[in-house]
Amino acid sequence: MPDPEWSLDPRLAQDTVELGDLPLNRVLVSRDANYPWLILVPRRVGAVEIIDLSAADQTLLIGEMSLTGRALKALTRCDKLNIAALGNTVRQLHVHVIARSPGDAAGTRPVWNVAPVRRYDEAELARFLAAMRERIGLT
Amino acid sequence: MPDPEWSLDPRLAQDTVELGDLPLNRVLVSRDANYPWLILVPRRVGAVEIIDLSAADQTLLIGEMSLTGRALKALTRCDKLNIAALGNTVRQLHVHVIARSPGDAAGTRPVWNVAPVRRYDEAELARFLAAMRERIGLT
Repeated sequence: MPDPEWSLDPRLAQDTVELGDLPLNRVLVSRDANYPWLILVPRRVGAVEIIDLSAADQTLLIGEMSLTGRALKALTRCDKLNIAALGNTVRQLHVHVIARSPGDAAGTRPVWNVAPVRRYDEAELARFLAAMRERIGLT
Repeated sequence: MPDPEWSLDPRLAQDTVELGDLPLNRVLVSRDANYPWLILVPRRVGAVEIIDLSAADQTLLIGEMSLTGRALKALTRCDKLNIAALGNTVRQLHVHVIARSPGDAAGTRPVWNVAPVRRYDEAELARFLAAMRERIGLT
């Protein structure tokens, strides 16, 4: 069960659109259209590190990383997933699940601090959200 | 049980020193002394993505990420862990577990493509290896 007093960090909220809730995580989509990019945020008050989660929650977390990663890979037919929990600026525990392709804005580099943010066209974002919700099973 | 025919990618071998084996992962230490930096490599032939692992192996993986992350944090008293499975250049599945501190070479940025590699002094590396082995319980 999610912590009832949990709330999303405002900087994460600002940079993303909400996709829906899985048993552990709120699932977000980054507003940066350079990369198909999900962010999973465990709904646990005060969690900063993966090691702050209980063993049961850690198992849930990697299960939801896999569920969303598989859906993202199937939808985008990407070459590689990048999965990362960094948190150097936003402390609230969050896990990036990013679809990478050879021709994308960062090439073989990690995506952070590389290319300027590209804004989604509204219709493009709506299509991506709908397709991701269907594949993940978020209604 | 590890796959008997598994072997470590030569580029990972070149950039690291071996710490030891946990039930799933070979545990490596990066030769870049800018950051206390472990790399976990699941001993599974052909694994590129976390989603290539079975559910049981995924649970093992996050358990070993936590075990090594906890040990690294306790030893270094770092401010934050960075945990990431990227694989944009080396395809063999590997997970970075990196200790970050405010004064380090990358500041608030992710570590990749930021600072030139700093070589360990041999005695400093030997001390780090011994201390990590003791904390992780690798003999």
